[in-house]
Amino acid sequence: MIARPKVALVGASGFGGTELLRLLARHGGLELGMAAAATSAGRPRAALAPNLPAALGGAEPFVEVSVRDLAAADIVLLGTPDEASLELVPDLVAAGARIIDLSGAFRLTAADYTTWYGRSHGAPAFALDGATPAIYGLVEHAREAIADAQLVANPGCYPTATLLPLIPVLPLIERAGIVVSAMSGTSGAGRSTRDELQASIVHGDVVAYGAPSHRHTVEIETHLGSGGLGAPLVFTPHLVPMSRGLLSTISAPLRAGVTQQDVDAALAVAYDSEQFVHVLEPGTFPRTKAVHGSNACQLSAVVDARSARLLLSSAIDNLGKGAAGQALQSANVMLGLSETTGLDAIGVYP
Amino acid sequence: MIARPKVALVGASGFGGTELLRLLARHGGLELGMAAAATSAGRPRAALAPNLPAALGGAEPFVEVSVRDLAAADIVLLGTPDEASLELVPDLVAAGARIIDLSGAFRLTAADYTTWYGRSHGAPAFALDGATPAIYGLVEHAREAIADAQLVANPGCYPTATLLPLIPVLPLIERAGIVVSAMSGTSGAGRSTRDELQASIVHGDVVAYGAPSHRHTVEIETHLGSGGLGAPLVFTPHLVPMSRGLLSTISAPLRAGVTQQDVDAALAVAYDSEQFVHVLEPGTFPRTKAVHGSNACQLSAVVDARSARLLLSSAIDNLGKGAAGQALQSANVMLGLSETTGLDAIGVYP
Amino acid sequence: MIARPKVALVGASGFGGTELLRLLARHGGLELGMAAAATSAGRPRAALAPNLPAALGGAEPFVEVSVRDLAAADIVLLGTPDEASLELVPDLVAAGARIIDLSGAFRLTAADYTTWYGRSHGAPAFALDGATPAIYGLVEHAREAIADAQLVANPGCYPTATLLPLIPVLPLIERAGIVVSAMSGTSGAGRSTRDELQASIVHGDVVAYGAPSHRHTVEIETHLGSGGLGAPLVFTPHLVPMSRGLLSTISAPLRAGVTQQDVDAALAVAYDSEQFVHVLEPGTFPRTKAVHGSNACQLSAVVDARSARLLLSSAIDNLGKGAAGQALQSANVMLGLSETTGLDAIGVYP
Amino acid sequence: MIARPKVALVGASGFGGTELLRLLARHGGLELGMAAAATSAGRPRAALAPNLPAALGGAEPFVEVSVRDLAAADIVLLGTPDEASLELVPDLVAAGARIIDLSGAFRLTAADYTTWYGRSHGAPAFALDGATPAIYGLVEHAREAIADAQLVANPGCYPTATLLPLIPVLPLIERAGIVVSAMSGTSGAGRSTRDELQASIVHGDVVAYGAPSHRHTVEIETHLGSGGLGAPLVFTPHLVPMSRGLLSTISAPLRAGVTQQDVDAALAVAYDSEQFVHVLEPGTFPRTKAVHGSNACQLSAVVDARSARLLLSSAIDNLGKGAAGQALQSANVMLGLSETTGLDAIGVYP
Repeated sequence: MIARPKVALVGASGFGGTELLRLLARHGGLELGMAAAATSAGRPRAALAPNLPAALGGAEPFVEVSVRDLAAADIVLLGTPDEASLELVPDLVAAGARIIDLSGAFRLTAADYTTWYGRSHGAPAFALDGATPAIYGLVEHAREAIADAQLVANPGCYPTATLLPLIPVLPLIERAGIVVSAMSGTSGAGRSTRDELQASIVHGDVVAYGAPSHRHTVEIETHLGSGGLGAPLVFTPHLVPMSRGLLSTISAPLRAGVTQQDVDAALAVAYDSEQFVHVLEPGTFPRTKAVHGSNACQLSAVVDARSARLLLSSAIDNLGKGAAGQALQSANVMLGLSETTGLDAIGVYP
Repeated sequence: MIARPKVALVGASGFGGTELLRLLARHGGLELGMAAAATSAGRPRAALAPNLPAALGGAEPFVEVSVRDLAAADIVLLGTPDEASLELVPDLVAAGARIIDLSGAFRLTAADYTTWYGRSHGAPAFALDGATPAIYGLVEHAREAIADAQLVANPGCYPTATLLPLIPVLPLIERAGIVVSAMSGTSGAGRSTRDELQASIVHGDVVAYGAPSHRHTVEIETHLGSGGLGAPLVFTPHLVPMSRGLLSTISAPLRAGVTQQDVDAALAVAYDSEQFVHVLEPGTFPRTKAVHGSNACQLSAVVDARSARLLLSSAIDNLGKGAAGQALQSANVMLGLSETTGLDAIGVYP
Repeated sequence: MIARPKVALVGASGFGGTELLRLLARHGGLELGMAAAATSAGRPRAALAPNLPAALGGAEPFVEVSVRDLAAADIVLLGTPDEASLELVPDLVAAGARIIDLSGAFRLTAADYTTWYGRSHGAPAFALDGATPAIYGLVEHAREAIADAQLVANPGCYPTATLLPLIPVLPLIERAGIVVSAMSGTSGAGRSTRDELQASIVHGDVVAYGAPSHRHTVEIETHLGSGGLGAPLVFTPHLVPMSRGLLSTISAPLRAGVTQQDVDAALAVAYDSEQFVHVLEPGTFPRTKAVHGSNACQLSAVVDARSARLLLSSAIDNLGKGAAGQALQSANVMLGLSETTGLDAIGVYP
Repeated sequence: MIARPKVALVGASGFGGTELLRLLARHGGLELGMAAAATSAGRPRAALAPNLPAALGGAEPFVEVSVRDLAAADIVLLGTPDEASLELVPDLVAAGARIIDLSGAFRLTAADYTTWYGRSHGAPAFALDGATPAIYGLVEHAREAIADAQLVANPGCYPTATLLPLIPVLPLIERAGIVVSAMSGTSGAGRSTRDELQASIVHGDVVAYGAPSHRHTVEIETHLGSGGLGAPLVFTPHLVPMSRGLLSTISAPLRAGVTQQDVDAALAVAYDSEQFVHVLEPGTFPRTKAVHGSNACQLSAVVDARSARLLLSSAIDNLGKGAAGQALQSANVMLGLSETTGLDAIGVYP
């Protein structure tokens, strides 16, 4: 048996981290080397990931973070907050590691990071306008660059769900006046004991938050079109009472004369040969539960002639295609594995 | 003790109907005369409204619909589908009844009804462009007309949540380019055994539906500004996994020079003396659970200078201010009772 | 207008506390004097109770705890943890206050408290075996004692739901072999940011906890029959994915010859004249949502001849009859108000 | 490439059926031959299973039921109601098919079926006391018999979750006085548009049902111990507000002298080498979400010396180990495949 490439995790006890543990336990093409978690070191993985049977690593403890040990892996996956990623990445790069970072640390220019995250960027060389910028890992639109990347910035959950339907139709719509309304399950906020993420408060409740200055606004604008969107996009996220799942509903002004056929054709060109992006018939709307636990993205598009606008809808699992799944999709690409390895689960429905 | 005015219900076994039963059981100023329900006649009310104790009418049966008996009440509340309302209203009016209709039958012009509901209007005299049009019962903006009305068309749940924040700020925004994204609990779809409203399917799922041709689109356009909005509004409703609650998120282009203060002032003028509409501080977002079981509407407004757009958010209980509560608010007005009688419950939170 | 008796709250920012705020804002017979909350002092009440409109006190801040100020009220309601209640109660009693304590501090003997809570009892004079024991405030079964009480120990949520159906049938069942399985929404665990009470973890999950040594086990045993049950009761609580609501399912061995009629008669005698306890027909099961937001308890009983056991089921709102509602019911009794004042809300269903 | 054994499905549009479609699409060792569904014939599978991408069969229609076509498969899986199974099985057996039936048709003696299902058994030869009885497919305890079976009766969801923890400890407990309380997500009731399974009604609600005469009571008694339990078991199922997941909480009187070690040892002997049954440490309770979407069963056992009772808790996905997963586990055994083929998914958590 040939040795499989080794993956090391950091931030392995967060929700992105435990989802990576779940996926790696059945990956087949990758082997988990170590699972580090600063705050949970010493606790068994199953304490935070009770779905992990002992026989699949649930009884093993999270370990302390060690750059040297991490760098021995073929790929390092960072499930850490952006501040921690900013600290770790320069050292890991210096140690020769190839890295996929799930945080927001390397998805923007250093200036935009400062503006939208409210602090200076601690590793500007790897920012989008740095000397050795990270590759933005929206795999369907950056496959070649990812293959050779040393550092991949895994896209945010909202940007993933919003960019996948928008990128192919960008030539068909006006850039000004795009309005995005998105709804996420609570796991998108990470493992957190913030008062407002308590079950008692979330259950039976829907609420907008973070608008109009949510960080994912600028991330979407930055990666929509080469050179960015060039116009402000309106983005309003909402918390909905479920654990996983993210829906993005997008209204964009159509260019004159654009038809449903034009839109269908653009999406078909983009995604007919993709394994993870499923374009639904117009009239059928994506639903988050159809992609629950999977790396799939469902999307649909309807031209509304009355308002001269395009309605796009897309659904992902925020921990799947919106985080851990997409990160492993990039890992597969970086390591020359089949892109679907370990990611072929179908959404658990109903 | 002075006799209280009598209310008769039709369609009393639907969700709007059972919410009316709940509210009337504790109203104080109104007395329930009869609760008719064609499909459930003979069954005890508690079979469909298990929250109703026997001592509060739970053991009494729903009765058959009889126009003569209904017309003897001081107010008839119709919780029927629009087709049934179209049949009942002419007879009830002829019999001298004052009516509040919770369906969509009398909220539009006959022509718009035909276009958006896909069938001809069976009682055009009472349509918005008829000889004796119904009054659109958005109480905060039609109090005087409601007081004298013979027929009130109770607003839809989405229009209520969308019009309340939009009407006061209409002079401050552009009419073209308004985009509304709204999320409703399943009870907004009525008591229904449609496959897609099963608990197994709804739980953990978010999905758009009905767009871009949902009937509430034209209802909002019709009642936004005297003479209507005059521009197409984009409206996308979503089903979210909860029973009650409706959130409307609205993005509207600002007129040049409009400031947060202008918006705050417009909302203050409109709602500072209202009992049911609560304007939150900018930065605090309405949450559906805060109004659960109540007749309240929470709303907030944020000027986004970057996009030159206004973000409005509002929350109601779709069965409260979005249906039964607002209907009783109109009934109070029609009968000269204090407007808050029987409607002062505070949202059940958390 | 006659001045209404004044109520002071401590621990007002917890879930029991904010439910008291909601109920008191519409009570009619009581006036809220002060709302103290050690950890939230200075914050507006609406920050933790967003259902409270500004006009109903939402904008007023929680205040610091002051025994002197508290003691000026006619009733002091303690929504504090048991440790805090143990500290406050002796001082409040010394200052002449009448107190209703929602914690577990005074529901047991000092010895049982030590055994089941794992610490010594700081105010044994008020424990069940103390010189001036608290009255256990299960109102339907202790009305007279409550009327004159200086200190009422408000029953726990599980004990309330379990004792109400069990007490009347105790002469009909064997004391050994009672098995209780109960399910609670998360608000029963209090406002808490414990990892396992996060929305992401709770949603879609059911799990037992605390068994077989949950503190409510001994509380039920203690108050079941004069002198206590005299046999170990098996009690297993579960966390279910909802915010409010508690169901208790009880299996008890029947004494020989007991019939359904015997059971029905015992329950009728106990509850036919009660306003808050609703005995359902055999075959109809209580449902938590039917009592959501109310002070009601639904219960039903079925004799199973095959197993010679009685199946009891009961539902309450853990924050209503299981906490704040029952506390105000006691307050009404203590102050000579009608017992249902401010508590007549019907469950919000569906 | 060697041809894989062919599976035919009947009743493929129910929840058990669509879960089988999901699992078979990624099975690897089995090939789906046909998916028949009487009521949905002609509709694309994705209309009822929107998680199924077109490339994995989602666009293919359900077909009509044809015994001849079915019998050509290596295994026929029946996801039909018990009445339909009773009709189909004799014909399928006559045609030489090997069958796994997911309904309750063949899990009992004909007499018990008549008593508990309220109708006579249409195919008594295959009942438990018939000439050629079905094999009860609780794989961990009937592996050899299943391997050679022509007809397997797939266990019910509640019996699966209850028998797995109880069978190994049966020698350690008394047979009289076992009390089971179980909670299931709504999908256990099947795809259904019954009023009480509507999302609006189920959300935020917990309710017991069917007790004390739920059919799974006798199924558990029948298969607990050779010759059956020999004493009445008390079983109360509950509906909890989630789609999938089933928890069984069991209280059983311990035989004198039995210790925690005895129990742990019995469970270890039974399950240490099993792939799907995970015994948790005492003090850790199974949670339904940990097995969501998987074929796993988590269980735990705690000896309560105080009450001389054993507390068992177990969690399964009612559509996984409780239905489709276990059926495919049997299919694997019947066809000589590795038992875990296609069933190695880890629960989707959180």
